[in-house]
Amino acid sequence: MRTQVGIVGAGPAGLMLSHLLAARGIDSVIVEARSRAEIEETIRAGVLEQGTVDLLTDTDVGSRVLTEGAKHDGIELRFGGSGHRIDFARLAGRSVWLYPQHEVLKDLIAARVKAGADIRFEASDVELRDVTTDPVIAFTDADGTPIELRCDVIAGCDGSAGISKHTIPDGERTDYFKAYPFGWFGILVEAPPSAPELIYAHSERGFALISTRTPEVQRMYFQCDPEANADDWSDEEIWAELQARVAGDGFRLTEGRIFQRGVIPMRSYVCHPMRYGNLFLAGDAAHTVPPTGAKGLNLAIADVVVLARAFEDYYAKGSVERLEHYSATASRRVWRAQHFSWWMTSMLHTPPDGEPFDYHRQLGELDLVTSSTAAATQLAQAYTGWPLEY
Amino acid sequence: MRTQVGIVGAGPAGLMLSHLLAARGIDSVIVEARSRAEIEETIRAGVLEQGTVDLLTDTDVGSRVLTEGAKHDGIELRFGGSGHRIDFARLAGRSVWLYPQHEVLKDLIAARVKAGADIRFEASDVELRDVTTDPVIAFTDADGTPIELRCDVIAGCDGSAGISKHTIPDGERTDYFKAYPFGWFGILVEAPPSAPELIYAHSERGFALISTRTPEVQRMYFQCDPEANADDWSDEEIWAELQARVAGDGFRLTEGRIFQRGVIPMRSYVCHPMRYGNLFLAGDAAHTVPPTGAKGLNLAIADVVVLARAFEDYYAKGSVERLEHYSATASRRVWRAQHFSWWMTSMLHTPPDGEPFDYHRQLGELDLVTSSTAAATQLAQAYTGWPLEY
Repeated sequence: MRTQVGIVGAGPAGLMLSHLLAARGIDSVIVEARSRAEIEETIRAGVLEQGTVDLLTDTDVGSRVLTEGAKHDGIELRFGGSGHRIDFARLAGRSVWLYPQHEVLKDLIAARVKAGADIRFEASDVELRDVTTDPVIAFTDADGTPIELRCDVIAGCDGSAGISKHTIPDGERTDYFKAYPFGWFGILVEAPPSAPELIYAHSERGFALISTRTPEVQRMYFQCDPEANADDWSDEEIWAELQARVAGDGFRLTEGRIFQRGVIPMRSYVCHPMRYGNLFLAGDAAHTVPPTGAKGLNLAIADVVVLARAFEDYYAKGSVERLEHYSATASRRVWRAQHFSWWMTSMLHTPPDGEPFDYHRQLGELDLVTSSTAAATQLAQAYTGWPLEY
Repeated sequence: MRTQVGIVGAGPAGLMLSHLLAARGIDSVIVEARSRAEIEETIRAGVLEQGTVDLLTDTDVGSRVLTEGAKHDGIELRFGGSGHRIDFARLAGRSVWLYPQHEVLKDLIAARVKAGADIRFEASDVELRDVTTDPVIAFTDADGTPIELRCDVIAGCDGSAGISKHTIPDGERTDYFKAYPFGWFGILVEAPPSAPELIYAHSERGFALISTRTPEVQRMYFQCDPEANADDWSDEEIWAELQARVAGDGFRLTEGRIFQRGVIPMRSYVCHPMRYGNLFLAGDAAHTVPPTGAKGLNLAIADVVVLARAFEDYYAKGSVERLEHYSATASRRVWRAQHFSWWMTSMLHTPPDGEPFDYHRQLGELDLVTSSTAAATQLAQAYTGWPLEY
């Protein structure tokens, strides 16, 4: 079996890459360990940058994001007891859409299936071979058939726990890790939204994020010890903590039944380089960001936009220039996004070893960000996403 | 002996305050421990914000700053082996002037003396009494006469080592400290400038700042262990370190005879509140910043601009509103400046416990700052100074 681009992983990066390649007449096969149902039903949040939404609609993945997603023209930074809006539309001329990641995946899978794409769900024993010469993706198909998929190149899009990056030998790969000294305690709540836009709250007790999933279900997080056990907290304690962190100006969260809870760690990771021979890494396989900047999914999309253009040049013109520069080009955006995620995190979270000086300095920074047009514009541009070139 | 505003300290804050009060017909006396010669001959660097220069010239302190100071329309951020200019004039419509602090002091003293101001140099045994009721500055005059200077209010402008802030009882005062985990190794060099503008360099070996004092004398710094002993370094080692930190694109520092060296600590301090009864703190007496943001002198000037307006309202209209708000108004700028100084420091210095991730994140940040107009504008506006209202 043979294809031009063998893709490992049917997440946002792999599916979008396959979709973009098809539009350029480039053949691909996706090999994915999970079932289609599992992918479509694993509920994950999603804040889509303007560029991601434009790409979805411009390339005919569907318009559900526009009709079922919620367009947000700003966020609220809450500190010192009151809210301060960052007006994305006015400052950056761009917006974001709240549209869950699994809905994006449903749309991409539907578009790919409709176009007759070859997606091998439920593949097992996936292995990458000869990635520096004539690459092969070896796997066992859902029906038990062992398959050797020969490819010109492999795109490793198998997420943070995937095998692709480990195919790069230790001596050829640098792993950049950062573990933040706090986690996020997250809950899902049956309640109407407490506010029309996302609230990023800074307080003496630590950070909180008030987000929305649907008109009936809300997502809320608060900074906690990364080792905290979610079951140690009573509902009353959770609400008291959340209410305290957003308090001021008479604002109250609308409470409701908490039906899911958990603690997530805050981590950053970057793999360097993102290319090894004929293996190209994209999305979470190459980097992860803490959720504070809402950059994870969007960074995966940005990677494959660069990669699709590079493959296009290679197949249409025989030019390897963009492929040679893929790692450098994609990494530049990755490190900017890592910085933005770190910045939003460090501006809003209370470090466990923080001194009172740091708390007041953060208030000085938040004051500056919300009252300087240049500073607010920088935040708005980064949050809604730097332009994609496709 | 009696005056309206008793001022402790003939530094930038005290002298400028006395000058601004005189223009409003408000009487003041300055009590200063040092001699006039010592003040005028203690050489200290100075980067003056646009607003500070405008204030000096608008209030007729003299135009030497314009003729003898060096107007700088930008700085260079150097990282990843090349230089990137932040164009203050284009981005912020403002500039800074390199004009040493002792020259500002000479100008202010000359203007004050010419106007017949009462400045008591070489005062000893200075003590503040009854600051919450009928304040008195008790001191021994240069000729040995003990004096009790009765005042309506006292302005504590006696610098970071001064007595004023300690007059606020411990329970009424919060001291916010931050010690940065590095120092600056500074040298004075007999050499022509290596570049037309200041260079702020980020490198794997740490930060360096290349500044200029005169066409013949240059000031250079590099990040070091705060406990380092300047005498442990040979000239060759110093030059090797500096050259390594600015290397790239064939750039070389012009070397010369090193005739002064020393290690300075990097610290932040804020006293809260800046008012206690009839005592008002201004300048370094209330706050110090690390030199990275070049904010020290400018913040002192900004404080007394606020204070002079408050005294004007009090004496001209009997209104205490601005006096009541002095601490809050001045503190807002102080915390913004603390943030800016921390930001410039943390963006450019290599933390001793830093992980490789942090180094690359800094490069991502510097890339963003030098390629995003909004981010560069924010830096340019902060560096050249937020507007003063006088």
